Amino acid sequence: MLNLYNEKSGAKLKIIPLGGLEQIGMNITAFEYEDSIVVVDCGLSFPDDDMLGIDLVIPDVSYLEENIEKVKGFVITHGHEDHIGAIPYVLNKINVPIYATRLTIGLIERKLIEHDMLESVSLNVTDFGQTVELGYFKIEFIRTNHSIVDAAALAIHSPAGTVVHTGDFKVDYTPVYGDAIDLQKFAEIGQSGVLALMCDSTNAERPGFTQSEKTVGKTFDNIFAENQNRRIIVATFASNVDRVQQIINSAYNYGRKVVVEGRSMVNIIDTAQKLERISIPDNTLVPIDNIKDYPSEKTVIITTGSQGESMAALSRMASNTHRKISIDPNDLIIFSSHPIPGNEKPVTKIINALLAKGADVIFQDAHVSGHACQEEIKLIYTLLRPKYAIPVHGEYKHLKAQAKLAMELGMPAENIFIMSSGDVIELDNNGAEITGKVQVGAVLVDGLGVGDVGNVVLRDRQILSENGIMVVVMAIDKASGLFLAGPDIVTRGFIYVRESDELMEEMSELLYATAEDLMDKGVTDFARIKGTIKDVLGDFVWKKMNRRPMIMPIIMEV
Amino acid sequence: MLNLYNEKSGAKLKIIPLGGLEQIGMNITAFEYEDSIVVVDCGLSFPDDDMLGIDLVIPDVSYLEENIEKVKGFVITHGHEDHIGAIPYVLNKINVPIYATRLTIGLIERKLIEHDMLESVSLNVTDFGQTVELGYFKIEFIRTNHSIVDAAALAIHSPAGTVVHTGDFKVDYTPVYGDAIDLQKFAEIGQSGVLALMCDSTNAERPGFTQSEKTVGKTFDNIFAENQNRRIIVATFASNVDRVQQIINSAYNYGRKVVVEGRSMVNIIDTAQKLERISIPDNTLVPIDNIKDYPSEKTVIITTGSQGESMAALSRMASNTHRKISIDPNDLIIFSSHPIPGNEKPVTKIINALLAKGADVIFQDAHVSGHACQEEIKLIYTLLRPKYAIPVHGEYKHLKAQAKLAMELGMPAENIFIMSSGDVIELDNNGAEITGKVQVGAVLVDGLGVGDVGNVVLRDRQILSENGIMVVVMAIDKASGLFLAGPDIVTRGFIYVRESDELMEEMSELLYATAEDLMDKGVTDFARIKGTIKDVLGDFVWKKMNRRPMIMPIIMEV
Repeated sequence: MLNLYNEKSGAKLKIIPLGGLEQIGMNITAFEYEDSIVVVDCGLSFPDDDMLGIDLVIPDVSYLEENIEKVKGFVITHGHEDHIGAIPYVLNKINVPIYATRLTIGLIERKLIEHDMLESVSLNVTDFGQTVELGYFKIEFIRTNHSIVDAAALAIHSPAGTVVHTGDFKVDYTPVYGDAIDLQKFAEIGQSGVLALMCDSTNAERPGFTQSEKTVGKTFDNIFAENQNRRIIVATFASNVDRVQQIINSAYNYGRKVVVEGRSMVNIIDTAQKLERISIPDNTLVPIDNIKDYPSEKTVIITTGSQGESMAALSRMASNTHRKISIDPNDLIIFSSHPIPGNEKPVTKIINALLAKGADVIFQDAHVSGHACQEEIKLIYTLLRPKYAIPVHGEYKHLKAQAKLAMELGMPAENIFIMSSGDVIELDNNGAEITGKVQVGAVLVDGLGVGDVGNVVLRDRQILSENGIMVVVMAIDKASGLFLAGPDIVTRGFIYVRESDELMEEMSELLYATAEDLMDKGVTDFARIKGTIKDVLGDFVWKKMNRRPMIMPIIMEV
Repeated sequence: MLNLYNEKSGAKLKIIPLGGLEQIGMNITAFEYEDSIVVVDCGLSFPDDDMLGIDLVIPDVSYLEENIEKVKGFVITHGHEDHIGAIPYVLNKINVPIYATRLTIGLIERKLIEHDMLESVSLNVTDFGQTVELGYFKIEFIRTNHSIVDAAALAIHSPAGTVVHTGDFKVDYTPVYGDAIDLQKFAEIGQSGVLALMCDSTNAERPGFTQSEKTVGKTFDNIFAENQNRRIIVATFASNVDRVQQIINSAYNYGRKVVVEGRSMVNIIDTAQKLERISIPDNTLVPIDNIKDYPSEKTVIITTGSQGESMAALSRMASNTHRKISIDPNDLIIFSSHPIPGNEKPVTKIINALLAKGADVIFQDAHVSGHACQEEIKLIYTLLRPKYAIPVHGEYKHLKAQAKLAMELGMPAENIFIMSSGDVIELDNNGAEITGKVQVGAVLVDGLGVGDVGNVVLRDRQILSENGIMVVVMAIDKASGLFLAGPDIVTRGFIYVRESDELMEEMSELLYATAEDLMDKGVTDFARIKGTIKDVLGDFVWKKMNRRPMIMPIIMEV
């Protein structure tokens, strides 16, 4: 093994995923050797269905806060939200330098500007092939391919050995922008000896090889050739810069003007353009307000909303609530994306709405994945010949599929680790084992509040969402303990009241009788009064209607 | 055209879908000729994601109620929930005879027993080939294939012509139980002349021919042969009687005992067994409590939960909350189903949980659809040669796909009608057009309440689910109009309060100042006091936290 280090302390390398498996998308992994910690990626996740009202989910970085003096920096693989999205929140607590390639830094910069934090953060552009020294660590950025330009794998050299983290990647011999993945470098690092490989598992269940992004360009050319008499609307991910490049190429080839619509896409394309990561011919992009000056069959609209997001531009077009664009029976809408699990239904809903307006829809033909399939994963394993495997990026089933591939390539099962968030693995050439667990978790962002919504609030929202609330208010005389007013009932989300006046009457009578009974018994303890009201009313509603609204008794002392 | 009718009134036939396109699953269609109405199917739908807390969705049958003296009966194509599920609710209002084949009637009967309604309803078993006369209509039941036994298409003869409604169907030349679809009968009816075809569109986007259900049996045999040393758990739809038959066949072939688990599946299999629609060898089924008496590799568990339903048996097994069965690393779990759109994420969640327990999972290999693909649809069109086409069963995109197929077969576009719920089409041999619209809609069932949750309640539930509620209570002196107590704030689902004491204080001060101000100004109008509190507090919370909780001011007069 190439020894980048003159002396060895004999310590082991620790790797700690601080997010990931339990909260897909929240990619953040700490590498620790003696007094040095570097962190790879800092992504956010979108809320699960049961996180009602939550906007974003970011990682709990208590472990980094507790070890703040060790943390030397963040190294970021590429500029997608699930790898950079939590940076503004985490940097608030752990302000250390950030290292990434050009477009990635550009996108982080924009994010920090939005959070009014740019001044306080050290951003460092790293070139491919360059090595960044952070404490004991030497981190080399290696070119890969993905659905965004400037994606990097990282060779993380430590005195205990070298770990390669692929980030999100695919092998694209004919990428849209820049060069193919630097397989020579992978081979060279493999030659020097690799302690562990942390490889993208997203497509590990899929056999074969992911097609080149360029094939999508050909598909676009064909679609544009066959549809010269109609407007074309293409929906894709805001962050899929290469895809946008190809749509623009086809538009240019067929003499169409292009509008980019959707705030996140406008932002990303703007950044990519400034950093020369996308090349747009002059006079091709036009502002949305000017598009009406061109015949519709000479225009293309590239838009967000390919995942059926209800507030995105395409969704607003489909529901007639977009201020500037409405769908025409002569439109062709292309979904250049694959629905993320969970989004199938909203996507289908929009497709049906577009078809019902008479438009035509092309779904999924114009898309390839940005992640490596099985043959690519095997290639990387074979070039790197790692001693240990720690599959990353994906659900449990994906990690397990990669583990199976690694075994097929001859790796012993005991050298493969499927890690949960917070697991600490300690490893060197003599062995690897999971030795502990650190605090991790999902911090919920709701509006401007970070972490102020926890399980109690979420459970209440769940109950409220399913059954609504009944508030029971009463005024009690401070001195005598007698009921002065109420109990009165007010409900929300429970039942449409005018249709159920009789029910309200029954409940009022029941509560009135209960209050009298409590007074007769001389009960003045508020907790007991509230508890009794909850029980009596709850039982009544359950027996009568099989429902369990939240019941909230409020006593006012007068 | 064969004339079943001696005299013609010259009236047109009306067809009115009372559910369907807008609420998938809620299949119910009225056929009306002069003073006669017959209704085909009476299904329920499951709530959309935005119907918070709703259990079931049933059709608004106001049109039938208004024309109750015309309604002669319900004819039901097969025994799935989306075709029979609303019967107990609808029959409460429109108690007319029901006609269906044997298993279908058996399943309806069980449903009526659960609702304690059996005594009051006339259920009539119809044989294939039999014709039921209902007013002007003569309805012939034609054998088809589907994923449940005794599925029927209906030839609905009226003086204005014959309409064929396929129900859910596929063409299976080698069905698991009973005979293949009665293509001779379709040909014969086609020969006599068909005014309109209402054909299943579910798989109209898929080319080719749906495979025979029997192919799944072979897949099971292969899986059972390769996994003789482990327990096998198969999850499928409770109502897929043919599938259960085949699992039992394979279990019997490989000397395994079978447990059926999940209430709905136990019920349906019990009914099918009593009516001899499933054949189970003696000593094969064992009660769940006895399964422990057999070596696990000699057992099969057939269970509900293939759609990831959180309360179903498989889900409880995966989360260690099933009282009698827990997952073992040696288990093989087969998902013999395809996720219904919207269920992909919960299904994947269960698969990941099962894999994390060390079990193996086979997904989707052991399944074929119960619906006709393009070649089967074309076969039915070609045998029937209808004048008009009214595609049914499916989302807009599926109906449109079938319309396209019909056009490819030479039908003029103007003879094809994609109908929305409530549309009235009037047709005879001289023409067809949509002439009106009747009241239709989704009636929401929540617990024991039918229709008592409407849009206002749902909107409130939505707000409550995302932002929670702030109740502001105050007591005001009846005589003087002065504030005696409060304003006090109580929140639920808004924020975890102990962490936000300062916030509570700020809000209290704000409200107190607002109350003082109102008193100073001599405001005593409750509506104005409430409105002011809502505005002031709402603005404060929005500016401070970017959130919009429901604010509910309550004034007690003392």
